[in-house]
Amino acid sequence: MKSGDATIEVPAESSRAAEKGKAPLIAVTATPHENRKYKKGIAIFDFILRIGAIVCILAAAAAMGTSDETLPFFTQFFQFEASYDDLPTFQFFLIAMALSGAYLVLSLPFSIVTIIRPLAVAPRLLLLILDTVALTLTTAAGAAAAAIVYLAHNGNPNTNWLAICQQFGNFCQQVSGAVVACFVGVLIFVLLILLSALALKRH
Amino acid sequence: MKSGDATIEVPAESSRAAEKGKAPLIAVTATPHENRKYKKGIAIFDFILRIGAIVCILAAAAAMGTSDETLPFFTQFFQFEASYDDLPTFQFFLIAMALSGAYLVLSLPFSIVTIIRPLAVAPRLLLLILDTVALTLTTAAGAAAAAIVYLAHNGNPNTNWLAICQQFGNFCQQVSGAVVACFVGVLIFVLLILLSALALKRH
Repeated sequence: MKSGDATIEVPAESSRAAEKGKAPLIAVTATPHENRKYKKGIAIFDFILRIGAIVCILAAAAAMGTSDETLPFFTQFFQFEASYDDLPTFQFFLIAMALSGAYLVLSLPFSIVTIIRPLAVAPRLLLLILDTVALTLTTAAGAAAAAIVYLAHNGNPNTNWLAICQQFGNFCQQVSGAVVACFVGVLIFVLLILLSALALKRH
Repeated sequence: MKSGDATIEVPAESSRAAEKGKAPLIAVTATPHENRKYKKGIAIFDFILRIGAIVCILAAAAAMGTSDETLPFFTQFFQFEASYDDLPTFQFFLIAMALSGAYLVLSLPFSIVTIIRPLAVAPRLLLLILDTVALTLTTAAGAAAAAIVYLAHNGNPNTNWLAICQQFGNFCQQVSGAVVACFVGVLIFVLLILLSALALKRH
């Protein structure tokens, strides 16, 4: 208030920028600096969550991929062995985890872009859309594997499908662990979408 | 450039408004009216898609709920019958479809609110978050049922689970139809989330 000259000078300059159509970026909120900080915080949290999701998805893929159990007894012609590639659903699970993990790694640079430029809309929108697709893929793989794991544990007397987990206990445990890790990943994906939506909305 | 006075006057006024923190609402877009129209269009499309999703989900629930086949031959003690409640996964499918359908019906009023007030952010954000949760539930139910349907069609020689679709052809067809309808619903959910994200972003 004391330096009247300065207060007139600054608005005059910003208004000239507005005439050129450049002002909106600055004029969007009453406190652009706070808004920027808030969105930067969201972007950093987004980056951390993405790394957490990568860990979960890789853990799920590793647990599923190494699941393999050979029973200690065998007949003359036959050895009893269970592995993930005995069941097509578990193969699909592994492929889906690989795709989802690859997407997450490739999305990290975009997440970094949103940290550097918190007010940019395009990368966030891209991340939100691709996250939704990846969420669908991961959920589908996890749920399908869960349905088969349930069947392996409990069997189904109505269709004469017998439980195999009495014989292949370790195999079943490892596969169940993979499904749980996958669902933790799904939870993180939902959080990521929520964060992107919060960051997209006008403040 | 000719009327030097005017060009100085207008920016001076807008900059004074900016100082009071009232300018942003006007300065956000060059044409607020067009932005409003654009968002209203998205909201109407959102409403139509929601009705389409309700139809798909109800069709899936109805197809699954009425799936029931009794074979024309029977023994003295036993009648061969297949119904959705013979398999826990199909029961889960039906419950998830019921929840998802109920959510979609309850979300219609919020969708109408976004048509009436296209620039309101809160209802859109609410819809986006709940849509994401409903998408996860619907995808999980559809994928789990798909895994079991695949098993019913093809069986699995490695685990001695035999295909039952040779005997219960109609039952399998009806259940497969329910899964397809569910996945169409999933596709619509992804579109809904995409639309909400587009509507949330600053124009």
